[in-house]
Amino acid sequence: MSRLIDEKDIENIALGAAILGTGGGGDPHIGKLMAQQAIKEYGPVTLLEPNEVPDDALVVPVAMMGAPTVFIEKIPNGDETTKSLRRLEKYMGKKVYAVMPMECGGLNSTIPFVVAAQTGLPIVDADGMGRAFPELQMETFNVYDVSGTPMVVSDEKDNFVVIETQDNDMMEYLARGITIRMGGVGYIAHYTMTGKKMKSASIGYTTTLSMELGSILRSKDDNYVSPLDKMKKVLSTSDYGEPIGLFEAKIVDVDRSTEQGFAKGTVKLEGINDYTEKTYVVEFQNENLIAFEDDRPIVTVPDLITFLDLETFKPLTTESLRYGYRVLCLAIPTPSIMRTEKALKVWGPKYFGYDLPFVPVEERVMTND
Amino acid sequence: MSRLIDEKDIENIALGAAILGTGGGGDPHIGKLMAQQAIKEYGPVTLLEPNEVPDDALVVPVAMMGAPTVFIEKIPNGDETTKSLRRLEKYMGKKVYAVMPMECGGLNSTIPFVVAAQTGLPIVDADGMGRAFPELQMETFNVYDVSGTPMVVSDEKDNFVVIETQDNDMMEYLARGITIRMGGVGYIAHYTMTGKKMKSASIGYTTTLSMELGSILRSKDDNYVSPLDKMKKVLSTSDYGEPIGLFEAKIVDVDRSTEQGFAKGTVKLEGINDYTEKTYVVEFQNENLIAFEDDRPIVTVPDLITFLDLETFKPLTTESLRYGYRVLCLAIPTPSIMRTEKALKVWGPKYFGYDLPFVPVEERVMTND
Repeated sequence: MSRLIDEKDIENIALGAAILGTGGGGDPHIGKLMAQQAIKEYGPVTLLEPNEVPDDALVVPVAMMGAPTVFIEKIPNGDETTKSLRRLEKYMGKKVYAVMPMECGGLNSTIPFVVAAQTGLPIVDADGMGRAFPELQMETFNVYDVSGTPMVVSDEKDNFVVIETQDNDMMEYLARGITIRMGGVGYIAHYTMTGKKMKSASIGYTTTLSMELGSILRSKDDNYVSPLDKMKKVLSTSDYGEPIGLFEAKIVDVDRSTEQGFAKGTVKLEGINDYTEKTYVVEFQNENLIAFEDDRPIVTVPDLITFLDLETFKPLTTESLRYGYRVLCLAIPTPSIMRTEKALKVWGPKYFGYDLPFVPVEERVMTND
Repeated sequence: MSRLIDEKDIENIALGAAILGTGGGGDPHIGKLMAQQAIKEYGPVTLLEPNEVPDDALVVPVAMMGAPTVFIEKIPNGDETTKSLRRLEKYMGKKVYAVMPMECGGLNSTIPFVVAAQTGLPIVDADGMGRAFPELQMETFNVYDVSGTPMVVSDEKDNFVVIETQDNDMMEYLARGITIRMGGVGYIAHYTMTGKKMKSASIGYTTTLSMELGSILRSKDDNYVSPLDKMKKVLSTSDYGEPIGLFEAKIVDVDRSTEQGFAKGTVKLEGINDYTEKTYVVEFQNENLIAFEDDRPIVTVPDLITFLDLETFKPLTTESLRYGYRVLCLAIPTPSIMRTEKALKVWGPKYFGYDLPFVPVEERVMTND
């Protein structure tokens, strides 16, 4: 059943989505403030269950694209993504029924609420990754045959571009080049699809899941329950597997660069508490991709790797990682729709240049015991 | 008065435009073949005098953009530019009255004839440079306040992009990035303007001038008249100044690279015949920009610098220059609309990174005597 999302809910969504965002999906603080501001101004937003969307209604995912490292220094006016949506509607000559997120992440789970509040459109409780990924063809929409174009990319100076192509990889390549020339950040609307297609080509209930994850991390109980145990409970009723506490460690080095419009890098860690004497490396491209323990891979993309601050249990985005941080590293097994052979071709370790097979994290961890 | 342009005329236009193209504007051979093929298939094209276009009619310049070095290896299907025009019409929801060239050059003076033949539209006898230039904001249209967008860029794989911006420099920057990601060559339609605006913001009769220049270079007279003298006669009735024979020389080095979507380079020459003991350097970015004699500048952009093969008197594009070629180097003073203060900000030597003032070539040459 549909429900209304208010400012307080956004607080939870931003926090929970940053866990599913696996280090990417943009800064949760800015996204949260933008969505709360829009809801304050225009009123609460209707969140629809996927099955509440008519089969013939048009659904359009909206998002920010670019390097999160750039976004935190180049804050938007606030209406860029709504303008992209309106320009896409005008270009297609069709009215949109609802918007939806493209991915889970602090920013890209909340940006659609900005658009929904500003336009009065409802949001669908589903997305195209169930996590965050760095590239636009890395969407269940693409894997399950939705055209990524027509696509609109806008910037904060009212420059905008419409892309049309038969090839979603070419769409990513062109949009990335445009985003780079727009200064590193673009605001996008694309992967227009019918309600019927959305139901089969997306991951459902990820906004509700983010909201629940955020809520438990913020709740204060009388009896202490570990955050990991709380998360296990919430995720047990979802399409994801049970979360796994991988290690506790201190960051000893972060090597980071902004290349070709992406924030790429490597985090080195030394185990602490129960994990002393072990070393860890996590590699990222906007999002965390692979975790190694003493040079052995322990989690591979598309399974989720998330750092929580060991003191606050707040999730850390890749751009916020710093020397000296003490972290809890979690893995969450991705939904099965993300692990099909067709899907792994688009976002398995090989796509990112690793000569490693995808092995589900729950199997990798069992092997280690 | 309007006239019909047939296959034979195209032969002359391609050759003459390559002289005005000052080394750029694309390979004349491919453009010529494409235009002749289109005229053979669809019939001759109507060339309109600028004043024959109604003031309220819509005129759209069309062209190829990108590195000529790439174009000669990545030959188009032939209908890319027409598709760009049709997509622009559809996007604007308006019908186009006539097309026109953006620049003079072997390819970009003939591509509009391909579009005109395929669509049945007339061509206006005018363009926006009176020569060739490497960038899209280097148009009299831009200097005299025509918006460069909406703009369509297409490629041979049916990918296409619409750009909208208030800033013609940003248009060039975005379109260049897109062209690079399309493989180095794009087919464009933009700078839509009214007939009235076209009359004040373009250089007239450049197609007719190209045709006459091509004709005299190809004619065989009973009495030998030097090609330079023939060109002087044709140019004397135009907006250009009298052509100047700068030097005869042998190419001793060509340093060339494709950078950021442009063909950039330097040609070194040693004087021959009356010019022995002198050395020359010509620098280019798609087009020839500056000529030096013994390290002293003798021609500066936007004045025209053109190499003719000393045996055939055929113009040489920058991508065809090779060690050992013997050349005659010509300068042609550019029309006065190209030399205003406003215009020189867009395409003077400083814009291209040279710490040199623009001095009209006829003054530079007089100083030397």
